[in-house]
Amino acid sequence: MIVVLKQKANREQLDGLISWLKSKNVSVHTTVGEAHTILGLVGDTSKLDIDLISALDIVEDVKRVQEPYKNANRKFHPEDTVIRVGNTSIGGGSLTIMAGPCSVESEEQVVAIARAVKASGATMLRGGAFKPRTSPYSFQGLGAAGLEFLKIAREETGLPIVTEIMEIGQLPLFDDVDVIQVGARNMQNFDLLKALGHQDKPVMIKRGLSATYEEWLMSAEYVMAGGNENVILCERGIRTFETYTRNTLDLAAIPVLRRLTHLPVIIDPSHATGKSWLVDPLAMSAVAGGADGLIIEVHNDPAHALCDGPQSLRPEDFDAVAKKLFALHGFCRTLGGDEK
Amino acid sequence: MIVVLKQKANREQLDGLISWLKSKNVSVHTTVGEAHTILGLVGDTSKLDIDLISALDIVEDVKRVQEPYKNANRKFHPEDTVIRVGNTSIGGGSLTIMAGPCSVESEEQVVAIARAVKASGATMLRGGAFKPRTSPYSFQGLGAAGLEFLKIAREETGLPIVTEIMEIGQLPLFDDVDVIQVGARNMQNFDLLKALGHQDKPVMIKRGLSATYEEWLMSAEYVMAGGNENVILCERGIRTFETYTRNTLDLAAIPVLRRLTHLPVIIDPSHATGKSWLVDPLAMSAVAGGADGLIIEVHNDPAHALCDGPQSLRPEDFDAVAKKLFALHGFCRTLGGDEK
Amino acid sequence: MIVVLKQKANREQLDGLISWLKSKNVSVHTTVGEAHTILGLVGDTSKLDIDLISALDIVEDVKRVQEPYKNANRKFHPEDTVIRVGNTSIGGGSLTIMAGPCSVESEEQVVAIARAVKASGATMLRGGAFKPRTSPYSFQGLGAAGLEFLKIAREETGLPIVTEIMEIGQLPLFDDVDVIQVGARNMQNFDLLKALGHQDKPVMIKRGLSATYEEWLMSAEYVMAGGNENVILCERGIRTFETYTRNTLDLAAIPVLRRLTHLPVIIDPSHATGKSWLVDPLAMSAVAGGADGLIIEVHNDPAHALCDGPQSLRPEDFDAVAKKLFALHGFCRTLGGDEK
Amino acid sequence: MIVVLKQKANREQLDGLISWLKSKNVSVHTTVGEAHTILGLVGDTSKLDIDLISALDIVEDVKRVQEPYKNANRKFHPEDTVIRVGNTSIGGGSLTIMAGPCSVESEEQVVAIARAVKASGATMLRGGAFKPRTSPYSFQGLGAAGLEFLKIAREETGLPIVTEIMEIGQLPLFDDVDVIQVGARNMQNFDLLKALGHQDKPVMIKRGLSATYEEWLMSAEYVMAGGNENVILCERGIRTFETYTRNTLDLAAIPVLRRLTHLPVIIDPSHATGKSWLVDPLAMSAVAGGADGLIIEVHNDPAHALCDGPQSLRPEDFDAVAKKLFALHGFCRTLGGDEK
Repeated sequence: MIVVLKQKANREQLDGLISWLKSKNVSVHTTVGEAHTILGLVGDTSKLDIDLISALDIVEDVKRVQEPYKNANRKFHPEDTVIRVGNTSIGGGSLTIMAGPCSVESEEQVVAIARAVKASGATMLRGGAFKPRTSPYSFQGLGAAGLEFLKIAREETGLPIVTEIMEIGQLPLFDDVDVIQVGARNMQNFDLLKALGHQDKPVMIKRGLSATYEEWLMSAEYVMAGGNENVILCERGIRTFETYTRNTLDLAAIPVLRRLTHLPVIIDPSHATGKSWLVDPLAMSAVAGGADGLIIEVHNDPAHALCDGPQSLRPEDFDAVAKKLFALHGFCRTLGGDEK
Repeated sequence: MIVVLKQKANREQLDGLISWLKSKNVSVHTTVGEAHTILGLVGDTSKLDIDLISALDIVEDVKRVQEPYKNANRKFHPEDTVIRVGNTSIGGGSLTIMAGPCSVESEEQVVAIARAVKASGATMLRGGAFKPRTSPYSFQGLGAAGLEFLKIAREETGLPIVTEIMEIGQLPLFDDVDVIQVGARNMQNFDLLKALGHQDKPVMIKRGLSATYEEWLMSAEYVMAGGNENVILCERGIRTFETYTRNTLDLAAIPVLRRLTHLPVIIDPSHATGKSWLVDPLAMSAVAGGADGLIIEVHNDPAHALCDGPQSLRPEDFDAVAKKLFALHGFCRTLGGDEK
Repeated sequence: MIVVLKQKANREQLDGLISWLKSKNVSVHTTVGEAHTILGLVGDTSKLDIDLISALDIVEDVKRVQEPYKNANRKFHPEDTVIRVGNTSIGGGSLTIMAGPCSVESEEQVVAIARAVKASGATMLRGGAFKPRTSPYSFQGLGAAGLEFLKIAREETGLPIVTEIMEIGQLPLFDDVDVIQVGARNMQNFDLLKALGHQDKPVMIKRGLSATYEEWLMSAEYVMAGGNENVILCERGIRTFETYTRNTLDLAAIPVLRRLTHLPVIIDPSHATGKSWLVDPLAMSAVAGGADGLIIEVHNDPAHALCDGPQSLRPEDFDAVAKKLFALHGFCRTLGGDEK
Repeated sequence: MIVVLKQKANREQLDGLISWLKSKNVSVHTTVGEAHTILGLVGDTSKLDIDLISALDIVEDVKRVQEPYKNANRKFHPEDTVIRVGNTSIGGGSLTIMAGPCSVESEEQVVAIARAVKASGATMLRGGAFKPRTSPYSFQGLGAAGLEFLKIAREETGLPIVTEIMEIGQLPLFDDVDVIQVGARNMQNFDLLKALGHQDKPVMIKRGLSATYEEWLMSAEYVMAGGNENVILCERGIRTFETYTRNTLDLAAIPVLRRLTHLPVIIDPSHATGKSWLVDPLAMSAVAGGADGLIIEVHNDPAHALCDGPQSLRPEDFDAVAKKLFALHGFCRTLGGDEK
């Protein structure tokens, strides 16, 4: 950690700060410049509160050199995390494809879609039972009943299920779910993250609409700090000034996260763009860029979906896309991957 | 609501859509252009699901003409909402000043600050007991004990208290709080908003880091739809590309919200900028722009605050700022306000 | 075009507006709703000034249905534009790879790099002679001498050259350049765009840091309106809140532009990210997503580059990347492309 | 300047870097940490090319401690710059109000508006002769004729004129203009900035749509480096995700710039918001926040303005606003200003 002092810092204040820092088991190297004095802190600075130091009268700026996350950091865990879910696994070179409807609407609907996407090669079934909707007047999901329909579809197809939790109180209902999803709007719902750290289901954390990579990894760290190491990161677009697409899909997240963390990275082209015709090309881009998987909305009748219809593919379209994605994934493996 | 159809829409599909819309008690006016057909929908379109219509094969675009919020809408509630809290009120021409520490650290600390800010004219005491922190390794607040210290400070000074809730399970602890704050990261924690709609304490909703005015008002609508009309909106900066300040304070929110809604608007210059020396000028700007109040961080020893120190004012600085703000507020009232 | 009127619009004003619109050879369909009256305008609305209509007292909102660009619009020009440059062409299914140094530093440097990238399969040579630098104290490029070195490198290798113009006065110097590049900061330098429309060299327009797709296409329209149809669009990252990468590369631009326009689309992963280790994965993503080409910085000694070093590949790294890109491009063509 | 080295840096590379730095007359203090070695550079680092150092193989990150601008920096020029223009001055405690039409349309129009705004207290006349328009099909301004009409209006009223230049070739036409404005889209048109640095008219630089404070100040530095110290900064809104207002007016720019630079700061609420009803409250906010002045669009017939009508005030509205602004400015001076 580097501490830049203000010009007006006097000797006494400086000595006070240095002894305080030393009392935290950090050693301090001082560089006296014409305009500024710079302190280089060496040792375990992860427990130092950067806000506290910034607040000191004599401090102009504090800059971190080390990442503030430990459990999620590839430096301390060089091997890829591979998460076993049912008869499939996420991360480590395989291609995960989670497919299914935005909202679970009925047993028939979700079973039919599950069968279709399984036939096309999907490795997991996605579907929303609890739905975060901007308007209190929009359909809010089937809730517990929706979870039951998902489980029936799993029984019928063998596909593990991933579905979103919105609130700690719902946790007991998620006991028999395979992967618990945290939505973008809850990425910094820290109490929920803590609770998910104290159970053992894998957790997929979607990136918040305006979350930096570091904040996102800190949310993973919240779960991991509780003891649950099975965290998946899902890029689903960030909010920018461009309004043609719903959000801007940030595919640099794939190689950046591959370097910063050992956790698997899933891409959601459906929510990111809000347009079904953009799913195919962006899913291809994600696979070629090294993503561990995709989450894709598929609906048997997009025109009557209760939510998010415009971004859903029909099963026949999904079939064509999935075939291309697996072929591309196989081809890219023959080219050799990026270093981490 | 306006529905723009794709060029390829055939007569049969168009007729099907029109009869479906009519079945929703909406009347439809059709404009046939060279390239596009446009449907103008008249009647109560607030129950129409815009996503559902967008999903239809023949639809190119759907544009709302009316706002999607009702309870929060000034059109249906022209008079300013005034919220009575203890011996003070928020909205309707008065100037509310909520002041206090970022985090409650001890009884002594919060009582001392409460006395100081009361002497300077603050009308409410703010202080965090449950703290949303980006890192799981940072101080997370005193929790229930912190709430008790706030109540003691209220007893000592008569200042009503406003403090942040982070999770539905904490709600019973907030029974004796005067205003419940929802933080920016929880602005779209819809279950929490619903729960707050089913109790009767006033709720202050901070704007999410990347929330539009409409999304923010829809969050207010979530609370109001549950029956709780006492909602306060707090602008605390949005996330932009500029990193010199922590966020970018959007003061246009004041007149925009004044036009769109009848709810009071509070400005938070401390969190918006992250720098204590920016609090004075931006608080002045907020008052001159017509804000109903301010929420300002004050700490008796900023250098040792456990969180968010750099943005806190010392009591003596707050005193100078508060005096200027009340003087300015009085002066601006003599000039005559803006129309709504 | 759709015009939404304010509630208070009276009959007389409405009639006045309608007859004015009709005088512009536009026919008007009126939908009278409870709260708003909506006018649907049919005919050639491209000459109507949207700002002028918005300014009218009785108008609440004006929404365009048709795109404001004509020459760049795929609707009016369904076939891909293919631009012939020297012995290569851009667009229409081939993969263009423009490679070379950020800045031209010497004849030896640019010739050496040109030979290396040609050997690796690059189809064009890039290099900056006039450099836009944020600081007046940074190296500003070799200017006219740099252009001469580029031409020598072209003679040595046969690679056509693409290089940036910064100002109209430099145009005579660009007489013997193959493609003239307009940088992101000049994307809305309208006088420069007009001047480039009145000459016949192909023009590659980089997307502005905060330019929407529509604004970018309007800049292409400026050039095309002058008579020069040979325009190439280059996505090079937009400015967002994320600071880990220099900018956020928006790969959705590829399929979006493929639908909106017939012009070729080139991706610049070097400038977008500012980090050389992100070039490989993002270039792969771009090719799989259907880009017409890439522009990649290559330097023979990145550690001593006079500008933009961290984002440059060494020739041996570029060689490995280029081989993968051509292989991937070939493979993707066997899969069948996206519809437009 | 602080240089953070990669873990893998070996002794030899480190020594090489240190001697190279010393050859630049910079002294180097080394802090060896467990994970990283940190170099603190002391001396005149303003000539060091940060990109060059970042490019070195062994360097992980370079962080500036000092600002990269000199001439614009308040540290080296503590007194406010006051710019004398005709019989008025900008900066130093007075309130400048530039008012006038977006576009100059005719002699009658601009003379009439000039007389009206002068009567209301405006201190300068603004008006566009060369207009940057997103579409090549929109009205582009009257050009040289427009400049002549502005000069006639100046003669009639005594108001100095400020008007926008778009291209170096237009410079001879601006010989008799009082303040030359550089628009947001040209903020990083570096050749234009250089040319304006080599003439002696005051230059008002509007902030680019996605420009940081530092980039904006570097644009001022371009002009000042050429010898022209008379630079004015104009905040006109930045581009964010919020689309209700055209841009987001960043009023923190006022106190931030007051601290970073000695140059005067003008606020443009008309362009920032695109809505005339937001001009009054935001202009009030700007004055209370310490702005040196405002630039406000006024039109005698907003409904027929050739451009940007919705953001223009009528003369009678401007009169009311101007009276309030001068009264507020006087009152705020009695309260005592912010420290710088």
